[in-house]
Amino acid sequence: MTKNETKLGIIKKGAQLVHAKGFNNTGIQEILDAAGIPKGSFYFYFKNKEDLGLHIIDYYGEILVANTLAYLQDTSIPPLERIDRLLETNQRRVEKLNFKYGCPIGNMMQEMADLNDTFRQRITQVYTRLSGCIETCLAEGQKTGDIPAELDPEETAHFILNSWEGAIMHMKLTKDERPLTACRKHVKNRLTNE
Amino acid sequence: MTKNETKLGIIKKGAQLVHAKGFNNTGIQEILDAAGIPKGSFYFYFKNKEDLGLHIIDYYGEILVANTLAYLQDTSIPPLERIDRLLETNQRRVEKLNFKYGCPIGNMMQEMADLNDTFRQRITQVYTRLSGCIETCLAEGQKTGDIPAELDPEETAHFILNSWEGAIMHMKLTKDERPLTACRKHVKNRLTNE
Repeated sequence: MTKNETKLGIIKKGAQLVHAKGFNNTGIQEILDAAGIPKGSFYFYFKNKEDLGLHIIDYYGEILVANTLAYLQDTSIPPLERIDRLLETNQRRVEKLNFKYGCPIGNMMQEMADLNDTFRQRITQVYTRLSGCIETCLAEGQKTGDIPAELDPEETAHFILNSWEGAIMHMKLTKDERPLTACRKHVKNRLTNE
Repeated sequence: MTKNETKLGIIKKGAQLVHAKGFNNTGIQEILDAAGIPKGSFYFYFKNKEDLGLHIIDYYGEILVANTLAYLQDTSIPPLERIDRLLETNQRRVEKLNFKYGCPIGNMMQEMADLNDTFRQRITQVYTRLSGCIETCLAEGQKTGDIPAELDPEETAHFILNSWEGAIMHMKLTKDERPLTACRKHVKNRLTNE
């Protein structure tokens, strides 16, 4: 394996463990063991644990943004339906994980935003990209008359994303889909004023 | 100090530290130091760190439920306004903390629900009491015609609570009141269909 491949392997294993256990609750040694990397070689790939954490945020950010765009830029269906399909697909994904782990970016935000300002800024970049995708889709829906013109696209995008993050968090308690189904329903009603 | 007073002192200091830093990121020794309790006496008061964690959840649960009821049972104002006043007061509180720390129960839910099933059940008890207060208020508003009859009070209470938790989480990134103001506005609109 090249240096870059090994580095990506560590990031992927680290991302999985941090998603399941939390950042502060996951040790460097545990990540290296899971990735099959010899002890002591961590600092060949990363400056420190913070550096790995920032790579993990970027790693999940790319996945989430790509997935979000795949649904929200699908011009074959109306904007409002795209948003619901995005949330529904996300719901199917967490169902396969038995409603465990939650959102990797939401977890990181909750745990780290107040503890490390560099993390806070990096998570904000991911959040802004995700909410930006929703905002663009809402604005498109307003042009086609699909979505009420009086809604502020940016603020409404934040509300949708935050409500979804809150529902994903509540799902960790209920271990079922009810919080997600309720969120989708209320968001849809809010966007159609029905 | 009596044994109970000392125990409560440890719970309060532990609650503050866990709120600011997270449960796994806070050590027993650190809590004892902050509470001014001699090293080694922890197990005189608590079975283990989990036991203290459960006491912290109950401690915050009582505070949050009492605060929620103080607003939602205020029959001098209409039900819909009570919900907004509750959220507004909560907003003022986090503003005083410079939009840091988030919700103690939300943090604990995000961090611990998947790691410890006893925690998950105890947090669910608090969540159910909080959403129950909102549910009762919504049902009252439906009787007075304040709130649309077609809304399911339990499901809508979950949606409001989850959306607020998500907004509080996003506030950790923005360090301002915008996510909270947006949430209040959208919840109000959703409850009035305006």
